[in-house]
This record gives sequence, structure tokens and C-alpha cells, in this order.
Amino acid sequence: MNLDDMIMVSIDDHYIEPPDMFENHVPKKWADEAPKVVHEDGIDQWVFQGEKTSTPFGMAATVGWPSEEWGFNPGSYTELRPGCFDVHERVRDMDANGMLGSMCFPTMAGWNAKTFAESHDKEVALVMLQAYNDWVIDEWCGAYPGRFIPLGIVPMWDVEEAAKEVRRIAKKGCRSISFLETPHVQGFPSFLSGYWDPMLAALCEENMVLSLHIGAGFQIINRAPEAPVDHLMVLACQISAITAQDLLFGPTLRRFPDLKVALSEGGIGWIPFYFDRIDRHYANQEWLHSDFGGKLPSEVFQDHILACYITDPSGLLLRDRIGIENIAWECDYPHTDCTWPESPEFAWREFQETGCRDDEIHKITWENACRFYSWDPFVHTPKDQATVGALRARAHDVDVSRMSRHEWRARNEAAGIGVVAV
Amino acid sequence: MNLDDMIMVSIDDHYIEPPDMFENHVPKKWADEAPKVVHEDGIDQWVFQGEKTSTPFGMAATVGWPSEEWGFNPGSYTELRPGCFDVHERVRDMDANGMLGSMCFPTMAGWNAKTFAESHDKEVALVMLQAYNDWVIDEWCGAYPGRFIPLGIVPMWDVEEAAKEVRRIAKKGCRSISFLETPHVQGFPSFLSGYWDPMLAALCEENMVLSLHIGAGFQIINRAPEAPVDHLMVLACQISAITAQDLLFGPTLRRFPDLKVALSEGGIGWIPFYFDRIDRHYANQEWLHSDFGGKLPSEVFQDHILACYITDPSGLLLRDRIGIENIAWECDYPHTDCTWPESPEFAWREFQETGCRDDEIHKITWENACRFYSWDPFVHTPKDQATVGALRARAHDVDVSRMSRHEWRARNEAAGIGVVAV
Repeated sequence: MNLDDMIMVSIDDHYIEPPDMFENHVPKKWADEAPKVVHEDGIDQWVFQGEKTSTPFGMAATVGWPSEEWGFNPGSYTELRPGCFDVHERVRDMDANGMLGSMCFPTMAGWNAKTFAESHDKEVALVMLQAYNDWVIDEWCGAYPGRFIPLGIVPMWDVEEAAKEVRRIAKKGCRSISFLETPHVQGFPSFLSGYWDPMLAALCEENMVLSLHIGAGFQIINRAPEAPVDHLMVLACQISAITAQDLLFGPTLRRFPDLKVALSEGGIGWIPFYFDRIDRHYANQEWLHSDFGGKLPSEVFQDHILACYITDPSGLLLRDRIGIENIAWECDYPHTDCTWPESPEFAWREFQETGCRDDEIHKITWENACRFYSWDPFVHTPKDQATVGALRARAHDVDVSRMSRHEWRARNEAAGIGVVAV
Repeated sequence: MNLDDMIMVSIDDHYIEPPDMFENHVPKKWADEAPKVVHEDGIDQWVFQGEKTSTPFGMAATVGWPSEEWGFNPGSYTELRPGCFDVHERVRDMDANGMLGSMCFPTMAGWNAKTFAESHDKEVALVMLQAYNDWVIDEWCGAYPGRFIPLGIVPMWDVEEAAKEVRRIAKKGCRSISFLETPHVQGFPSFLSGYWDPMLAALCEENMVLSLHIGAGFQIINRAPEAPVDHLMVLACQISAITAQDLLFGPTLRRFPDLKVALSEGGIGWIPFYFDRIDRHYANQEWLHSDFGGKLPSEVFQDHILACYITDPSGLLLRDRIGIENIAWECDYPHTDCTWPESPEFAWREFQETGCRDDEIHKITWENACRFYSWDPFVHTPKDQATVGALRARAHDVDVSRMSRHEWRARNEAAGIGVVAV
């Protein structure tokens, strides 16, 4: 096996939702209420129920830019590499990166549909949230069957509605929902509270995955007021351990034996240390009478959780201690941490340096993801056409060079790409 | 080399300060103001300036008890294994465990001299804090030269006084101070603020170590209200990564090139993952222009920080990635996590399972600790008498069996040990 023989399915990427996303999915009665993008002073912003929200493209959509242009500043669609928001361009970018499959997280909606949860009119919010999910499933994922794992959002403001939405989108082929890693930090009940149980029950019944992306829970750490932005970027993965702890000792995972949880972008290198610690704790602190159904806490983790990483050599070295079935790879397109357009080279080098066998590489790059999300891409793409080599062979014409925001704007405006009418 | 040939120096143990600790160290003028232990309803409590504080012996002094008796409940000195508070018995317990050296952290005083920092009369508080340090250095450590690394506390309420106290105890041979891992969480300025610089400068000038014990900063995590006590015990080590982040990106460590920091009881297994992350962050997020003086952030960590562990097989497997010079062993006597009286067996088994060479074992069990704390025990104990085998040979009469609190009380009361006059 060589680099070109790998098959790569990423369970953590992102879209910048395009301005026209609501056009085909909002019932006529509500059309005027749909979120809209307005262009002002060079910046594109979503407007919903009178609230404007801009996206920090400088962190969230940097895949086309040199790193000097990164930052927290907003901007316009025209400044972006079109693969950020245009599914046809995205698939070409995936081909150029040798990527067969991708699961994309929301941007404008927030990990947990925040944009809708915070709106004052919850009836309208639910209509728009459902339109959002319909766009994700029917339009973005539907345009290229076998290339995207559909990931929905739920109305967090009403757990029964959330459970209903899980069931509704399951019927449409959705495989997962994005949710908050530590809901109590945002003022919602915690996983330990039991409040979310109806929604978790619905996920189990529909065989869907609860995907918890890092970043959502960053406020769980009481940072020093002087802490630089590096803290957020470096420490975000430490919170995945807190999320795992909430679920394991909650005891959510024991109450829902079929629940599947993905710790999205959480990394894997923290897991062996965490396992050492929880198993020793369980054995040593018998007086607490923790109940893991006769298993070790690390075994319960392994029964339920899929972890994923972008680059993580220490974690790969200890893959046997994590559980080779519990590790998935991710690309993180179009965020700053992503390895596009050299993800295969990046991943392959680490596999070689850490001595991964061919069967282990397959598990990490696609088998675990496909099994966990019950998603079969080979119905649509035969395996021999799904490899890095095969996908790249048809994308030789994709220009992967990085350009300044300014250059992108000039180029996109000339082609009428991403232009929002003033 | 075999188990008996190891030399073991633990840089994280604890004393339960004995009731008579202030007797020989408070100037006559202040004698009536000294903290005192009172016995009431079967419980011993310290009283200082009208404030009573009880120690949760059920967590802090469990070394003699079976685990069914652990908990957060207070108790009396008579219920404890005398090695908790009596230095002569402590040294016998160390011998029985094959331990040459130990550095003990405060209990009644708190990691950061909280008991004194919170008292209303700061003049009295400073007198008592200095008496405390004098007891530590002259009485506890002084009773057995070459067996204890002296660790002091400082008046956190006044950074200039803290710097002065560092210099005062340095002259008496003190090697380190105990401090808060995340001071901003307790309402003090953070390490990043620069407020502590005069104290850090004093530590550097005196070649002393800043020892930051886990637990002090636990409130940095906004736990779910339903989180069980397991959270605190399991997640405490995750906070060491936050402390390292505060110091590294603060940039305290770069401002003080000679500063030495011990992350006490923080474990080691999180470090390879943290290194992967900070080095990748540094390389990938160039736009942040982080300055590590031409080094990688992981190298700056290695220049300054000593980490220690009780049991940490995953960390030992990746010792080369952590830095073999940066790892020390600890016992944690008399806390619940300690491995007494079988620490050598515990450590040896992990060394064998993880394939540590003899030279690596020596570095971890004593060489790194002695170098880092500039503490030479062999002036007092020749090396051939300092080994596990030699120390245990003279402690055959030490009864290491665990007994109920009730049994300890009966036995100690009969012998007049630990009895506080009512």
C-alpha cells in the first residue's frame, strides 16, 4: 500500500453557508422571515429577526489564504476560496486533496443552532432550522451522493422538538447531529442533568451519532483576563476530556447503551493518559462505588466514543491503548488547522513515522468513520475510484495555490462568484 | 539493577501539621495568637483568629485506612497513622517504603498559605506564616537531614513580602515554595499579569523552585452542577496543561530564563499531546508572531518544567517525547492516591512494562529531582545506604497493615499519640 491507495473520509469539516441557502427550503408563507445576507462596508453579514451576525472568515474560511492574512476579522464571500461555500467547488477541492468523504459542521447556525435558539420568535426559528437541515441534506449533501455525511442541527430550546427533529431528519438520511460539548456552559442543562434524555433516546433509536465539536465549550475554562488567543486554540482539545468525563461519570453512556458520540476535532493524544487515570481512579477509589456495568471506564468509553485528529503523532504511537477502532482522521477544511491540499501527505508521513500497518491506516482513514456513522460511500463510488490516487487524477486542473483576500476578491468578482447584491 | 537497587525521592507528599507545630517558633509576644488545635465532638480543628478549619482527613490522611473508610469527613489526630503528623514515624514509614527523600506540601496552611492570607490581621498572619516555615525547615526537615526537601509558603497578600520571605527561607536552606497553579481563579492576579514578577525574580536569584500542586486551581473548570466528586479527582491533572499554557504563552518562562517550575502531581501522560499541539500551533499560526526565542514552545517547557507522576504508564511509554530529564516520581503519602507501602513494586512494574533502562529509572526516581531542587541527600546518606533494599532492611519492624479509624483511635489513645487536650 502506498499513499495513493489510501481512502480518506474526514468527519470534521465546515461549510460557510451560501447566501441563497434558504431559497429552496422555506415555505412561501415564511419566505420574508428567512435569514438573509446583507453586504455593507465590504462585509457580508447574516440578518435574522433583526439581528446581524458576521462570520470571522479570517479564522473560519482561511483555506485559500496565506497565514499572514488570518485573524478574527469578518469579510465578504468574494474574498473566499469558493470551495468554502459552493458545493461543486468543494467537491473539486476534495478531489484535489484525495478526499472521498466529508462531514461538514455549521458556521452561520453555530454548533448548536445558536442563531435560531437565540431568536425571539421560536415558531419562525423552528421553520428556519428545518429549512437549514433540508438544505444540508437535500442540497449540499444531495448534490453529490456518497461524498458527504449529512449532519443536522436541533432546536435546543425545546428537547421534545429536538427529539422530533432528530426523527424527521433521520428519515431523510441524516446520520448525525451537531451539539454542544458542555451545554451547561451556555446556560442549558448539562448532560448529567438527564434533561437531554429524550433527544439522546431518539438518536439511539435512529442509530444516529451525537457529534460534539471542540470550541463550543471553551467558556468552561475560567481563563486569566490577559490570556492570549493562543490559549483558546491550544487548550480547546483539553475540553474533550471534560466532555468525556461528563458523559462517562454522568452516567449518560451507561443509561444509553446504544449512544454513539463523536468528539469532533478533540484530538486523540489525551486519551491514553485519561484512560490510565479513570481506570486507576475506578480501581483505587472503590469507596465511591462507581458503576460501569462490570467494565472498566475506559472500556465504556471505547464502546461509545469515536475520537478524531488532524495531526497527532503521540496519539498514533499509543493507538493500541486508545483502541484502533476508536480513531478517525479529519481534514478541518476550510479552517486554519486544516492540512488541505496536502492532507494525504500529512497523514501518510505520520502513519509511517508511527509504524501504522495497512489495516490500521484503513481503519483510521475511513473504516471507523463509515462504520460509526453507518455511512456507505461505495454504493456511489466504487472502491477503486475512491482512493487518493483516483480522486486526484481527475482534479489536475484544480488550482490549489494560496492567494491574498484581495486577489480572491478581484478574481471572484470578475466571475460573479459569491457576490451579494447590495 | 533490580527493584532493591532503586533510590527513590518523591517530590510530592504531604504532612498533617501536628498540634504543637507553633510552640517553638512564635516569638513570646505573639504566643497567644498562634493557631491552636481544639478537640470538639471527636473532631480536631485548627483555630486561628477566631476561624475554625477542619481537615478532611478522610481524603488527606488515609494512608493507614482501608478504602471503605475514605471520604471527605474530618476526624481526630488519634485516628491517623502517626506517620501523617509525626516526623519520626514518617521517616520509619519512608524506610518501610524504601523511600530516601520526600518533599511535603502543607495541609492546614493550604497550598498557598490560604489560612494566613484570609486572616484579618496581616501582621499576625505574617508572624505565623514565618513560624510555619521555621517549623518546616528547622523541625520537620531539620530532624532528619537528607530526608526532606524543604518547601516553604509565602504571604500571597503582598508580593514584596512574598519576595522577602523567599529570600529569608532561602538562607535557611529552603529549596522551593508551594504556590497556586492558577492564582487568578482564587481572586489573585494571574501569572500572565506580571504582578508576581518580584517573587519570581527572588526565586530565580535564590535558585529555588516554584512548586504548583494540582487541586488548587480546580475552580478553573465550570463544572456541571451535578458533577460527582470523581470529576475533581480525574480532571485535576488536566489543569496542569492550563498552568503550563499560562506560563509558556504568558510569557513568564521567557521573561525569567532561570525560573524552575514543578507541576506537582500533574502527571506526565498529557505532555506529549500538549507538545504536539503547541509546536504545531507555533508553526501553523505564524500570524500570531509568538516569540519563543528561536526555540519551539516544547523546548522552552523542557528548559523550565519538571513534571511528576504516581502511576502513568502511557506517559512512561512516551518518555522520549516528554524529555527524560523532565520526569520525576512521587509517592503522595498520605493521600488516597499514594502507593505506600508498595511504591517500589508499583514503580518497578511500570518501568519494566514500559521498557525503561537503568539510567532512565535513576533519572526518574531521584536524579532529576535532586538536580532540579539542587538537593543532595548523599551528604547525609551514602548511596549504598540510600537504596530501597538498604532502607527497607532497617524497617522490618514497621507494621504497614491498614486498620479502621476506630482501631487507630484505640491504639493511639492508649499510647498517648495524637491526643489533643480538651
